[in-house]
Parts: sequence; structure tokens; C-alpha cells
Amino acid sequence: MEQFTVRTTGRCQLIPITAQIRSIVHNSGITSGVCVVFCPHTTAGLTINENADPDVARDMVYQLQRLVPADDPEYKHVEGNSAAHILASLTGSSVHLLIENGALQLGTWQGIYLAEFDGPRERKVWVQIVGS
Amino acid sequence: MEQFTVRTTGRCQLIPITAQIRSIVHNSGITSGVCVVFCPHTTAGLTINENADPDVARDMVYQLQRLVPADDPEYKHVEGNSAAHILASLTGSSVHLLIENGALQLGTWQGIYLAEFDGPRERKVWVQIVGS
Amino acid sequence: MEQFTVRTTGRCQLIPITAQIRSIVHNSGITSGVCVVFCPHTTAGLTINENADPDVARDMVYQLQRLVPADDPEYKHVEGNSAAHILASLTGSSVHLLIENGALQLGTWQGIYLAEFDGPRERKVWVQIVGS
Repeated sequence: MEQFTVRTTGRCQLIPITAQIRSIVHNSGITSGVCVVFCPHTTAGLTINENADPDVARDMVYQLQRLVPADDPEYKHVEGNSAAHILASLTGSSVHLLIENGALQLGTWQGIYLAEFDGPRERKVWVQIVGS
Repeated sequence: MEQFTVRTTGRCQLIPITAQIRSIVHNSGITSGVCVVFCPHTTAGLTINENADPDVARDMVYQLQRLVPADDPEYKHVEGNSAAHILASLTGSSVHLLIENGALQLGTWQGIYLAEFDGPRERKVWVQIVGS
Repeated sequence: MEQFTVRTTGRCQLIPITAQIRSIVHNSGITSGVCVVFCPHTTAGLTINENADPDVARDMVYQLQRLVPADDPEYKHVEGNSAAHILASLTGSSVHLLIENGALQLGTWQGIYLAEFDGPRERKVWVQIVGS
């Protein structure tokens, strides 16, 4: 299992981590298999989306915060970050990439992101590769 | 493949299943790999979130039910549980845990939950481990 | 890694792909393991849900479009399909199926779907199997 850290700078943001994952896959020597990327936090998640126009990530963060408001008076959790927990579950705690010919396989426009919902913080990302 | 059952007691609730998964991983003898937990139902899902304050699970259930109302008059599905189907897809049908040194790896605050959206029912959980 | 294509016919729709996945698993000769299905696009996703009443898929598409409106004036992405990108992340880029006795394992009512959010288009689906 490999690990790296990501420093987030805002409360809600998508941070690109494709380069780090690509490097771990390359260094593993695995030629065919699956790369599992896991987020060991409960107020951040992982997602795959557009790698070209940063406005896509910006629109996603905007819409997710509109859907799950941070200040809903019905929340009971005393830390006040229930929205971040809910958004972490909606985006999910892992993403999964295929490996072929020793390289990470992504669609043309795909990038991998850590989805921060309760930053700024230092976040860990865990990576495990299964294959041969 | 291993299987266990969970008895849910309310219509919408998160039921902790970390102990069952940890036990299956321990008994498998696998020292390094990935544990796939799969929910074979279409009105329940799986998620990973806070294991400490039960108000997080409570706030999540509240907010998910607000987002996807049970009684939207536009639904056509005759069984009347469309909201449960939609929430099952939003949370997802599987979660994935890394295994290292023979132990399930989770972040400090993470627990694994069955997300019931159309209970009470008896639910099955399937577990497969890939590794060595 | 195997690949097949799906021709979508509407802007937002769920297209069943269970038969194609089942065939790939059967032909792989793998008797026990995990099948990873990956969507290499950023405005479509994958999900598992009811295989019987098509109104479930219809209600899901309706509700997802209500939750994430296509025409929110706050969007900045110039291509005008931010909603499709957001829904792709909410449904997710991969689904995972268990394989036992050489067969794909699904719950009684489960089917696998490509979730199109910006069609009509020709979409690719990638499949990787890990096991023995």
C-alpha cells in the first residue's frame, strides 16, 4: 500500500491527484490489473471528472454545496460539519482505475480528484494495486 | 465469497457493519489486498462514514430523504419506493477497503454502513477478498 | 481489458449493459474474483439498480435532473453541460461485481446500467477482471 498527502486550501474544492496516482502505478511494475485509490477521511471523498476546463470542478463544488447546505438548522451533529460528511458519502470513499500495458487507463478528458468538503486540511490518500 | 445478513428496523437508517467485515478479513488469512463489500439489493446501499457520533448518520439520513422525497407525485414506479431506488444508486452498491498486514485499513473515524432506504427488512451483504 | 460500445439515444437515460458484462465474465474463464466495469467519460456514469420495472430507471432520471438542473444560471463551464458532469460524479465512474463459480453474482432484482447524462452519443465501457 502506498500513501501520499494533499494539502487543501479552501473549505470545498477539488484537488487534482492524477499525477501522483500515475506515478505510483508506473513505479509498481504491475502491467495489468486494478488500482484502488482510497480516502481515509469522513469529510472528503474521491471522484473522477473533467481534466481540462477548471470551471467544471468549480461548477461541481457550487452545485454540491447548494444541494447539501452547510447551515441546515435540522442538523444535530455538534461539530457543525454534517454537510461535509454527507457530501463525502455522495462522492464516495474510493475510485478505481484500470491498468493495461503497465499504464493507468483513463478516458481522454478524465482526471482524478480529491474532493475536499471541510478544509483547509492535510489529507491522506491510500493506493493499493491488485494485478500481475 | 462470504455472506452475512443484517436486520434493519426502520425505513431509512445506517447500520454499522464494520465488525462483520473486519472479522471476514481476519479469517481469510489474506495479508495484502482489497476487500470488496457488495449489496445485492436495489433499495439499500453501502457507505463509509463517521464511526463516532451517531448524529452524523442521523443527519445523513435526514438530508438524503429531504433531497430525494419519498412522495414526489411525478414518480411512476407502482411499488411507491422510487426514492429508495434512487438513494441506493446515489450511495452506491459497493465499498472497497484496503488490507495490509492482514488487517482491514480504515481511517481513524471511518466505519462501514449498510444504508437502508426501504426497511425494515432482512438484507444480505456479500464480501469478496482479492489479494495474497 | 475488454471494451464494448453503447449507443445512447436520449440526453439522459439508463441503458442496460448486464448482458454484455455477463458475457465478458463468462468468456474470461475466471471462476472466482471481481469484475470492474469502468466508464471512460466525464458526462456519463455507471450504476446498478432494478432490472424489472423500467419506471424505476425513468424515475431515477427524472429525479436526478430535478436535483441537478441543466440550466442553473450560476454555472460557468462554457460547454453548458455542467449538470451532466456533476451527475456523472454522483453516480460514479465504476461498478464492481463479484464472480463466483465462474458466474457474475447479482441480486435478484439487480441490473447494470450505463447512465447517460449528455447524449445521444456513442459511449465506451471498459471491463477488467481480477481473480483466478
